[in-house]
Amino acid sequence: MDDKHAVYQAFYQQYFPFWDELSLQDKQLLCENTVERTFDASQSVHNNLDCTGLFIVHKGKLRLYMLSEDGKEITLYRLTPGEMCMLSASCVLQSITFDVYVDAEEPSECYQISPAAFGDVYERYPTVKIFALEITVERFSSVMWVMQQLVFMSMDKRLAIFLLEETQASGTDRVNMTHEMISRHLGTAREVVTRLLKHFAQDGVLEVTRKGILITDKKKLRKIAY
Amino acid sequence: MDDKHAVYQAFYQQYFPFWDELSLQDKQLLCENTVERTFDASQSVHNNLDCTGLFIVHKGKLRLYMLSEDGKEITLYRLTPGEMCMLSASCVLQSITFDVYVDAEEPSECYQISPAAFGDVYERYPTVKIFALEITVERFSSVMWVMQQLVFMSMDKRLAIFLLEETQASGTDRVNMTHEMISRHLGTAREVVTRLLKHFAQDGVLEVTRKGILITDKKKLRKIAY
Repeated sequence: MDDKHAVYQAFYQQYFPFWDELSLQDKQLLCENTVERTFDASQSVHNNLDCTGLFIVHKGKLRLYMLSEDGKEITLYRLTPGEMCMLSASCVLQSITFDVYVDAEEPSECYQISPAAFGDVYERYPTVKIFALEITVERFSSVMWVMQQLVFMSMDKRLAIFLLEETQASGTDRVNMTHEMISRHLGTAREVVTRLLKHFAQDGVLEVTRKGILITDKKKLRKIAY
Repeated sequence: MDDKHAVYQAFYQQYFPFWDELSLQDKQLLCENTVERTFDASQSVHNNLDCTGLFIVHKGKLRLYMLSEDGKEITLYRLTPGEMCMLSASCVLQSITFDVYVDAEEPSECYQISPAAFGDVYERYPTVKIFALEITVERFSSVMWVMQQLVFMSMDKRLAIFLLEETQASGTDRVNMTHEMISRHLGTAREVVTRLLKHFAQDGVLEVTRKGILITDKKKLRKIAY
């Protein structure tokens, strides 16, 4: 086994709870069918046309989203290091019949396992199947949360939640995104975001600067959100 | 084993692909923890507060939906005879962290297995676990379809799809629902549905009568939908 395989091994052992159950051959099968992939920020990782395989994030962040025919996007969830994307391997999970798109949200490194190799192991080990299905059902929960927001919440509430989640993810009080980017995340028009941010700024919740958004009163923002 | 158990047995054997793998004791465990339930049309089967258990539809139709704080509903999918509701047993599937409501859409009969008994078998048999997870992932696909409609489609398209699906389900050209009922399914206001139906009627697609809606030009309706 070469050096690369040793690196994959160590990584998979850490993140695949079923790893130790696999036979030596099957461990090798997965390592041999792993490719290291590097993505620039905003680069496409997967589009709905192919069964690209399983991605496990090593560094960076992937974003899964739905895309309409006229280019409207809705962010479903993000994947961070150690997390994996089953929806890009929908040919393995045959009960998945919908399409998603995956982009790198920041410069990212992933391990990509071919669908054939993963599908092979998936079919032969119940624990692998259970693991893959369970993480998919977990994502189901995330998507339901997005759906609840979309359907039931007013846009100011959704924007407030989005800003809080972003500051929590970055650990700062800044959200360095353009209004255009935020509007894509929320599936609305840029003008709507700009107008709401203006309202928030007037209420002393935040400041809109050229570099992005600075949250100045998190307590107030939370009040709008929850 | 009494008469009732024999009826459950026959039913479960037909609809649970794992049934023959269970030990005699475990088959008995599930039968002993089965209750026959009868629901009137519109009666509540499950609300988000409890882990009610697993429902398998025997006769009739169940409707799963999301409910907002102010009473807005979105229909996620329906269950017909032989289909089962895992989301009402979310204490068994721990990766499910969202709430749904279930109503009987017409007079219905269901078998209800207690969450404890099903959870017990679920934990001990990988095939039971795989089965339950797989049907949940399938539902994930249905929900994504609803979401795609909600987010990306105009309301006239959604109404047309809804009417087509209803006529397909009933096998007639009639949709005997009030505008109020339709608007609840689509998560919009009654006025919006009334206005759109008027447009459709003017275009010769359908007739709005006191009893409900009669589709007069399915081809045209399909054109709006797809």
